[in-house]
Amino acid sequence: TTSPAMEEGGKGKKVMVVGGDGYCGWATALHLSNRGYQVAIVDSLVRRLFDQQLGLDSLTPIVSIQKRIKRWKQVSGKQLDLFVGDVCDFDFLAEAFKSFEPGAVVHFGEQRSAPFSMIDRGRAVYTQHNNVIGTMNVLFAIKEFCPECHLVKLGTMGEYGTPNIDIEEGYITITHNGRTDTLPYPKQASSFYHLSKVHDSHNIAFTCKAWGLRATDLNQGVVYGVITPETAEHEELINRLDYDGVFGTALNRFCVQAAVGHPLTVYGKGGQTRGYLDIRDTVQCVEIAIANPANPGEFRVFNQFTEQFSVNDLAKTVIKAGEKLGLEVRTINVPNPRVEAEEHYYNAKHTKLIELGLQPHFLSDALLDSLLNFAMRYSDRVDMAQIMPAVSWKKIGVKPRSSASEVKF
Amino acid sequence: TTSPAMEEGGKGKKVMVVGGDGYCGWATALHLSNRGYQVAIVDSLVRRLFDQQLGLDSLTPIVSIQKRIKRWKQVSGKQLDLFVGDVCDFDFLAEAFKSFEPGAVVHFGEQRSAPFSMIDRGRAVYTQHNNVIGTMNVLFAIKEFCPECHLVKLGTMGEYGTPNIDIEEGYITITHNGRTDTLPYPKQASSFYHLSKVHDSHNIAFTCKAWGLRATDLNQGVVYGVITPETAEHEELINRLDYDGVFGTALNRFCVQAAVGHPLTVYGKGGQTRGYLDIRDTVQCVEIAIANPANPGEFRVFNQFTEQFSVNDLAKTVIKAGEKLGLEVRTINVPNPRVEAEEHYYNAKHTKLIELGLQPHFLSDALLDSLLNFAMRYSDRVDMAQIMPAVSWKKIGVKPRSSASEVKF
Ligand SMILES: NC(=O)c1ccc[n+]([C@@H]2O[C@H](COP(=O)([O-])OP(=O)(O)OC[C@H]3O[C@@H](n4cnc5c(N)ncnc54)[C@H](O)[C@@H]3O)[C@@H](O)[C@H]2O)c1
Ligand SMILES: NC(=O)c1ccc[n+]([C@@H]2O[C@H](COP(=O)([O-])OP(=O)(O)OC[C@H]3O[C@@H](n4cnc5c(N)ncnc54)[C@H](O)[C@@H]3O)[C@@H](O)[C@H]2O)c1
Repeated sequence: TTSPAMEEGGKGKKVMVVGGDGYCGWATALHLSNRGYQVAIVDSLVRRLFDQQLGLDSLTPIVSIQKRIKRWKQVSGKQLDLFVGDVCDFDFLAEAFKSFEPGAVVHFGEQRSAPFSMIDRGRAVYTQHNNVIGTMNVLFAIKEFCPECHLVKLGTMGEYGTPNIDIEEGYITITHNGRTDTLPYPKQASSFYHLSKVHDSHNIAFTCKAWGLRATDLNQGVVYGVITPETAEHEELINRLDYDGVFGTALNRFCVQAAVGHPLTVYGKGGQTRGYLDIRDTVQCVEIAIANPANPGEFRVFNQFTEQFSVNDLAKTVIKAGEKLGLEVRTINVPNPRVEAEEHYYNAKHTKLIELGLQPHFLSDALLDSLLNFAMRYSDRVDMAQIMPAVSWKKIGVKPRSSASEVKF
Repeated sequence: TTSPAMEEGGKGKKVMVVGGDGYCGWATALHLSNRGYQVAIVDSLVRRLFDQQLGLDSLTPIVSIQKRIKRWKQVSGKQLDLFVGDVCDFDFLAEAFKSFEPGAVVHFGEQRSAPFSMIDRGRAVYTQHNNVIGTMNVLFAIKEFCPECHLVKLGTMGEYGTPNIDIEEGYITITHNGRTDTLPYPKQASSFYHLSKVHDSHNIAFTCKAWGLRATDLNQGVVYGVITPETAEHEELINRLDYDGVFGTALNRFCVQAAVGHPLTVYGKGGQTRGYLDIRDTVQCVEIAIANPANPGEFRVFNQFTEQFSVNDLAKTVIKAGEKLGLEVRTINVPNPRVEAEEHYYNAKHTKLIELGLQPHFLSDALLDSLLNFAMRYSDRVDMAQIMPAVSWKKIGVKPRSSASEVKF
């Protein structure tokens, strides 16, 4: 059920990918370019700086953005435009908008790690400033320079927290004291990072109403996997894969841990349940959103994930997949560095993207095999000291920390 | 039904009043001081700068904070401590916390005008940065230096917007698909200022949960009036009274307009209904919150207003009161500069402060007489050019504006 809009492909439609040097952004930029969109990457490259400052690195050897773009041109014949700068710098962003004139903006360009935002006061403040002000600038740039432009903004399923009722897609119809209204779904975020996304959502909703902007908020689940058809075409097109305690996310982390013989780090009881999706579905979802834009004035929210798993589910799956490859995988229970429910109800709706044609890649043995093999291939790049979590939600202080491991708890 | 906690008075308990040079903050600082609390004012005085930059001024002649404090000492025998600085500057705030060691912090210190936040991109960004980062710093300072300290934070009824169901106090119990949970009440703010308060609320709720902080969010309605027993004791203790199109709020504005023969500026249809309260109730509510602190880990929300009125209700009341004083008062319909519903359901709960002992000053003829007389006394200070609204929600642009009237729409 691919929509007609999707079958057409990009046809040269201009898409600006903010955060296009990152994990989701790079894969999306290449996918859209491959599908016939004209793509410009906007990125300050600050994520590479975070890695340097904290002494972390991608499992995969990622080359510079300039080299990546050159290689993509050579492999595909397609040109990616590049604007290196910070979206918090409005003058820079304005120039990028005026010169590129996007028809759609996909905004991935935020500080996206919950633990990073909980290292110290400075990074908590940085995260909220960077994300909230950056998004405000994107909104103002659209209003001023390309009011018809469709904003596709990456949010997170973490905005909802773990309520004891079903999670809907952005809105909930409430009947209360005999009256009924459909209101924004209540948000209960649990890190300064997740909170920054909640703030963004409120700000974007307001500008849709007040200025008639059109926006889609993709409340994305946890992304896993690393290979997409485009990034697989050359080693210099390889995507980043974070496995450390600050930037690594659940399933990717477990695969790398399994590959290097580190026990899987299950936080607390392991009953934490979240939505997950394959990176090949991230790029598909973004294309679907672009191909079926929101209406002027509409603030549309899609829950972007394909399956729910608990941490214990994931650990079991990785153990099984590891065994097939001859890896002996164990788990250890790590005192939970976060403040979150470890056993809870979780049932989140995610039908809107399916209705628009998403064809999910469900978590399969094949994917796990390939991810484990991939992790084994690069296992000599793993710094074992970076695997355990070192950031504590409760112990965050006001003193600046110069590295992640300095904050052992 | 004054609570026992209230009867005792402050007994030297230390309260830090952030924003204590402002309209609500100054009246509150004096009230608490009078009630036996040991009060420190923290204020950057930036509000006085906004007035200068936009060419605005309080109707009432307010003297410097240093002179105000000296006068209060002379009148009451009581000392107010003063820390002049910006709560966005954490080093400054940390020193203030370490030297004063507050038992409670009342946080009024934000950019609080919706029109100001809609003048231009720079002021929109400034408002969210100033308010969100300032509040984050207050939260970190409490966690680090006085974890038992009770935060009393000024929010606004505007966080809720105008939903088509009853507005509850901070939380709503929702039954959905056969399950029930009590969740944060959905927020629909409609200016970058109001949005900043929504962001604050989410951030504070998180820190109560994650760090065990105790906080009361006072979702305040529109404040009217100017005299409190303490500010009436000497002309140098007089409170500010804003009547201009940027900082003036509904009822205060109408009284000044009536006093100088300017028609009352009703925006749009005038059906906009909000909660209102007398400034003498603002100071009472804050004392009640301090005297009955939230529990550790509790994020408590009180809707702080005493009566609901529509703009048309207010206009009618002021016209009637004006007639008694021989003023001929008319209204003009001004195209609404805001984006808001002009006819809507509005029923907001506000029982929690009453249950704790609030004894409201309802809007009375006597108050209106005194407010009108007060406005007539200072009418030669009114700049007629500042009365009409000059900031448009839809026309906000990215170019910096050097004065409010430059943005006529
Ligand atoms: N990875 C996940 O599992 C996941 C899950 C849910 C949501 N998301 C969201 O998807 C988006 C992308 O995530 P990711 O995993 O690719 O993160 P990433 O850190 O790999 O990429 C983010 C990119 O944005 C850039 N950036 C950050 N701030 C910027 C600024 N102010 N100006 C310009 N560029 C800036 C960084 O340099 C980086 O290249 C984020 O918004 C994130 O919150 C990711
Ligand atoms: N006045 C109302 O009708 C009303 C209604 C609802 C809520 N409130 C809330 O009550 C609070 C006080 O409102 P007000 O009318 O007294 O405003 P005000 O502008 O008169 O006072 C605010 C004070 O805070 C100070 N301030 C601002 N940012 C600061 C910073 N970063 N560091 C230190 N000081 C800073 C200003 O200098 C000013 O003295 C605000 O938070 C406002 O949102 C007011």
